[in-house]
Amino acid sequence: MATQPLVVDEVISWPNVGVIDLRSDTVTKPTPAMRAAMAAAEVGDDVYGEDPTVNRLEERAAEVFQREAAIFVPTGTMGNQIAIRLHTQHGQEVICESRAHIVDWELAMVAAFSGCQLRTLPAERGILTWDAIRTAILPKIYYRTTTGLISLENTHNRGGGTVTPLDTLEEIWAGAKAAGLPVHLDGARVFHAATYLGIPVAALTRGFDTVMFCLSKGLCAPVGSMLAGSRELIDRARIFRKSLGGGLRQAGVLAAAGLIALDEMTLRLGEDHANARLLAEGLAKIPQVEIDLGAVQTNLVIFTLRDGEDYDGLVTRLKRRGVLASAVNPPGIRLVTHHDVDREACERALAILVEEIQKG
Amino acid sequence: MATQPLVVDEVISWPNVGVIDLRSDTVTKPTPAMRAAMAAAEVGDDVYGEDPTVNRLEERAAEVFQREAAIFVPTGTMGNQIAIRLHTQHGQEVICESRAHIVDWELAMVAAFSGCQLRTLPAERGILTWDAIRTAILPKIYYRTTTGLISLENTHNRGGGTVTPLDTLEEIWAGAKAAGLPVHLDGARVFHAATYLGIPVAALTRGFDTVMFCLSKGLCAPVGSMLAGSRELIDRARIFRKSLGGGLRQAGVLAAAGLIALDEMTLRLGEDHANARLLAEGLAKIPQVEIDLGAVQTNLVIFTLRDGEDYDGLVTRLKRRGVLASAVNPPGIRLVTHHDVDREACERALAILVEEIQKG
Amino acid sequence: MATQPLVVDEVISWPNVGVIDLRSDTVTKPTPAMRAAMAAAEVGDDVYGEDPTVNRLEERAAEVFQREAAIFVPTGTMGNQIAIRLHTQHGQEVICESRAHIVDWELAMVAAFSGCQLRTLPAERGILTWDAIRTAILPKIYYRTTTGLISLENTHNRGGGTVTPLDTLEEIWAGAKAAGLPVHLDGARVFHAATYLGIPVAALTRGFDTVMFCLSKGLCAPVGSMLAGSRELIDRARIFRKSLGGGLRQAGVLAAAGLIALDEMTLRLGEDHANARLLAEGLAKIPQVEIDLGAVQTNLVIFTLRDGEDYDGLVTRLKRRGVLASAVNPPGIRLVTHHDVDREACERALAILVEEIQKG
Amino acid sequence: MATQPLVVDEVISWPNVGVIDLRSDTVTKPTPAMRAAMAAAEVGDDVYGEDPTVNRLEERAAEVFQREAAIFVPTGTMGNQIAIRLHTQHGQEVICESRAHIVDWELAMVAAFSGCQLRTLPAERGILTWDAIRTAILPKIYYRTTTGLISLENTHNRGGGTVTPLDTLEEIWAGAKAAGLPVHLDGARVFHAATYLGIPVAALTRGFDTVMFCLSKGLCAPVGSMLAGSRELIDRARIFRKSLGGGLRQAGVLAAAGLIALDEMTLRLGEDHANARLLAEGLAKIPQVEIDLGAVQTNLVIFTLRDGEDYDGLVTRLKRRGVLASAVNPPGIRLVTHHDVDREACERALAILVEEIQKG
Repeated sequence: MATQPLVVDEVISWPNVGVIDLRSDTVTKPTPAMRAAMAAAEVGDDVYGEDPTVNRLEERAAEVFQREAAIFVPTGTMGNQIAIRLHTQHGQEVICESRAHIVDWELAMVAAFSGCQLRTLPAERGILTWDAIRTAILPKIYYRTTTGLISLENTHNRGGGTVTPLDTLEEIWAGAKAAGLPVHLDGARVFHAATYLGIPVAALTRGFDTVMFCLSKGLCAPVGSMLAGSRELIDRARIFRKSLGGGLRQAGVLAAAGLIALDEMTLRLGEDHANARLLAEGLAKIPQVEIDLGAVQTNLVIFTLRDGEDYDGLVTRLKRRGVLASAVNPPGIRLVTHHDVDREACERALAILVEEIQKG
Repeated sequence: MATQPLVVDEVISWPNVGVIDLRSDTVTKPTPAMRAAMAAAEVGDDVYGEDPTVNRLEERAAEVFQREAAIFVPTGTMGNQIAIRLHTQHGQEVICESRAHIVDWELAMVAAFSGCQLRTLPAERGILTWDAIRTAILPKIYYRTTTGLISLENTHNRGGGTVTPLDTLEEIWAGAKAAGLPVHLDGARVFHAATYLGIPVAALTRGFDTVMFCLSKGLCAPVGSMLAGSRELIDRARIFRKSLGGGLRQAGVLAAAGLIALDEMTLRLGEDHANARLLAEGLAKIPQVEIDLGAVQTNLVIFTLRDGEDYDGLVTRLKRRGVLASAVNPPGIRLVTHHDVDREACERALAILVEEIQKG
Repeated sequence: MATQPLVVDEVISWPNVGVIDLRSDTVTKPTPAMRAAMAAAEVGDDVYGEDPTVNRLEERAAEVFQREAAIFVPTGTMGNQIAIRLHTQHGQEVICESRAHIVDWELAMVAAFSGCQLRTLPAERGILTWDAIRTAILPKIYYRTTTGLISLENTHNRGGGTVTPLDTLEEIWAGAKAAGLPVHLDGARVFHAATYLGIPVAALTRGFDTVMFCLSKGLCAPVGSMLAGSRELIDRARIFRKSLGGGLRQAGVLAAAGLIALDEMTLRLGEDHANARLLAEGLAKIPQVEIDLGAVQTNLVIFTLRDGEDYDGLVTRLKRRGVLASAVNPPGIRLVTHHDVDREACERALAILVEEIQKG
Repeated sequence: MATQPLVVDEVISWPNVGVIDLRSDTVTKPTPAMRAAMAAAEVGDDVYGEDPTVNRLEERAAEVFQREAAIFVPTGTMGNQIAIRLHTQHGQEVICESRAHIVDWELAMVAAFSGCQLRTLPAERGILTWDAIRTAILPKIYYRTTTGLISLENTHNRGGGTVTPLDTLEEIWAGAKAAGLPVHLDGARVFHAATYLGIPVAALTRGFDTVMFCLSKGLCAPVGSMLAGSRELIDRARIFRKSLGGGLRQAGVLAAAGLIALDEMTLRLGEDHANARLLAEGLAKIPQVEIDLGAVQTNLVIFTLRDGEDYDGLVTRLKRRGVLASAVNPPGIRLVTHHDVDREACERALAILVEEIQKG
């Protein structure tokens, strides 16, 4: 979604005292515990495999996702792009939902790095089903390309933070297996999905060949994501991580925060969901607001205004009052709850939102 | 469309005496005049720019399309891929209709050679409008990619040989110009579109930055397509043609047939349209057949059967009776009329089609 | 070598009556027998595998090279690039001689299409040995790339048309096999090498995984090259040929000439070698000329002038007198003998060369 | 150079108490001051341009190198690859020294990401001159590719940490400018070069279009490098950084260490040079050792043994005694001095080296 970067000094002065930042959970800052861990982290040269904190994080992630191995990567984008490169050959197709992060926010790297074409399928709330995927798999004729990978996103960001249920996934895993196709999960916010469903991430991701998840975003680590999979895939992932310029040296300083993100911050996401619910239900009460309450499942709230209001204008007015939101496309407003905005802040934000919308 | 290649010796022996081949107009063979011209062609080394027949064809094509220059390429796929490479940077997006030839039949080369992502828009009968295109152009935010090109197809093959009218094109040309975006035409069958509209191809393609059209297919040349555009673009096209392995030496033998294709075979396409009409109207009379007669504008006929017949089975039965057709996907039958099936052959094919469908 | 394209109408008028064109054997024109065969060729749609003449040529090439299969491609460049793509993964290295055709004349497509880096080794007269290749194979460390392919060229164009002897090849084949690396032959002029050595091409190419050779160049076909290898490789080659835009339709018109090239024109290359010898030995007698007579093994003659003459000037003076030669880099003159310049023409050319050099 | 990764637990236990690690300066750990700065760093979302510490570091780097702008990147490899992508088009050539880091250690990404071919020139001690570069620039003929970039490395790692003098650079800058070619500096260790020459880095890099330098390696930051250049180039660099997966969020935690690396650690490199000198001169005294003392200019020492000793064996024996060194290729031993090995440690290492070599 086309969120305009905030020009900080225009309106508010650093360090955003009192500002309620609902633009994205990417804005979360490392917690005091993370900062302490980073300062004390045992480190080594991770290109040589000698950083003990990175090694601990990779083992821990593999354990949590019940996989043979996992690898630390600087960003979710790098994790996704490595996974796509791992599973495909140049000149193949990747099936995904039409508003997936890999379609809209990864700078066409599926084409530019993996040489693959996206076969995009529009799906209600971003939830792909096997029935839709099945028809998009190419037949094997020499003068056509072939399908190389199916990529899902759970929760689905542009679908509104929506969750693909386990039975839908199981059908896709079974179908893909029968078709001989690998399946990757862009699980940037997979802990949000697991929290919503009340099941462990390992169960929710069991049938994927690779799983990417983010330590930053909702889990508050300053930098970093993980890619989990088989030993063979993750060994090859190290090659592509190095080639993309992701072979960090003393990455243990980041992994130290990542360990806290993984083990502690994943437990508190219910709060963010409740806060999103609070915002969504509060907004639903105003006659000007149009909102699909059923899609508000995790920490995202997307709404539109019945009168086709100038969303950029609303964002600006909210910013003046200390509430940061994103105007998105197709036209609407997106709010994201996270660790750095607590219940009270959300209540305040809601009140300001209601006022400004009604002024509108 | 997934047309299964014919296994010739299974059913019929070369040279297909009596066979009515309606699978595609790509099966047309060089005419006697073309063969004579090829045998007598003055040739030279075209990599050095010294083949007089190629030079004449390139000049003639530029003249017909009222462009500064044109270049001979071995195939329409190469022409399209050169054009896309000319207009874009790796990592950009190309907007096109969701069933375009460059999406389904060019082996993901937009990704694999130009490093670009397709932004595909589904459109009724394959006819894109500026309104649809406009919303797909990306905003300029540094952390998103940008749109590099709009690519149209006229006639639109998978839309059913449908024609984009001139006023629709004019709106797109104006919009693209205002947005600073180049527009390419995959005009593999642009002479069919011009014939349908009754206007010269130069008028119908006036606003495109590059135009590709095929000398093979409906125009009967054995090999070859052309790419027309500005002198600067065509000069750069020579580089990419060479890099793709399209720098032929004594290509004059092919260009000689191409000159006849361009100057003579373009004049007779109305016959093929009339024959397609004959087939379509004949089929429309059978209760089993479902057909969008409005979409039968040129030399393609696509129809389905109400009872969800086994299309592969029908194709096999037709083949046994000497009529070659294609089962396509989404499920249906495609017939293509061309120079090598005359009125009488089409009448015979229609009778056999009707019989076999009614037997069905 | 940087041969400037001839601007035809500057000096001589078509059809080059009386001109002796020694710039390259790419200038050879189809023989009358070829023209007749092209005009009469049985054809079909080769994308569907239905062109009987193409099929015959592919079978014949496989037979001559004692391979499971062969595929017709529009150019030698396309043949080489398909082979490199077949054997490698993006991000690997290809070992080759530093002045190989794939280094200097294929527009960096090893990088742009196959995503591979060239590991170039300079070798005396272009003749690589296993000792040199061995040291260039990369060790397997995850943070380095790996070697994917060894590519040889025989005869070696920029080495002066030089021939790699069979025992040198056998050592390379054995070493590569032990190292688990495929070996490709750019055999654009492999029939010249076989003629020089007096052994069949099948013996001379036995250990290569793929062999590309040209029907144009010295063999006079107007257009076309072949790639031979295992059934599995050639089946995959069809995919890449299509993706590069080399999926011609009624290619039988070209294959008809190719059959004559393969079966008849390969028998006469000794004449061209004798003519090159005539030129080389004649030039060696002039004190101004410096020439490595030992390198004149086939149809190429490269020489320099002791006084560092202006080679472009010499080329221009020769052209005025009807002899076309190429100024090459590193500075020198290249002459190429072929079917279209007979003994008498070479004698005339030699006389003119001697005169102009002595005038110099 | 093929340094085998240390398998830590084989020989020594974390945290390497008493181990003298001379394998590379990449093993340096963040200093206490860096750890404190990281823990206290003001951070924000750098994808939105809101991380104040990253912004400060980027401004500071631009200031030190007297450039319009600079950008923080996770690794030197990413910095180099972004720069190469910025300056080139797919299908061009990049001129560099034959043992450059971009040739041997960046996993063929010049090909795989930028689609460019390397034109590698071997040079004594890795020091390229304009005379060598000039002859490698391609002429502009449409059927050849073109040169897109010249890339230098200073200090030159595989040349032995050697320094290209300012006058050599000035000649290259002038020549490249006249030829219309951009020049990039892989300045991973450019502060070492500046220290050796006793001039500011701004003077030493004045004529480059882009300069990459590392905050990690000799400057001790745990993670990070910088790319400096014009505003326009660095703005575009942000796009490619994002596409490569280098768009970190709260990167200020790393930038805080980077600021100390840039402003403080650059001042102490003379110590490392003196220590390398100590090692080199000590080794030169042993008859078994062959060493080019003139090449020991900065913090690298490369030596060979006259009797062709088993270098892997020597490395293993040294490791048992607590000295880590690298066996390199072509065969030899490399030692790298840095912040984490002080004078006394180097003296101890030298004694152990001498003993083990003499035992050898």
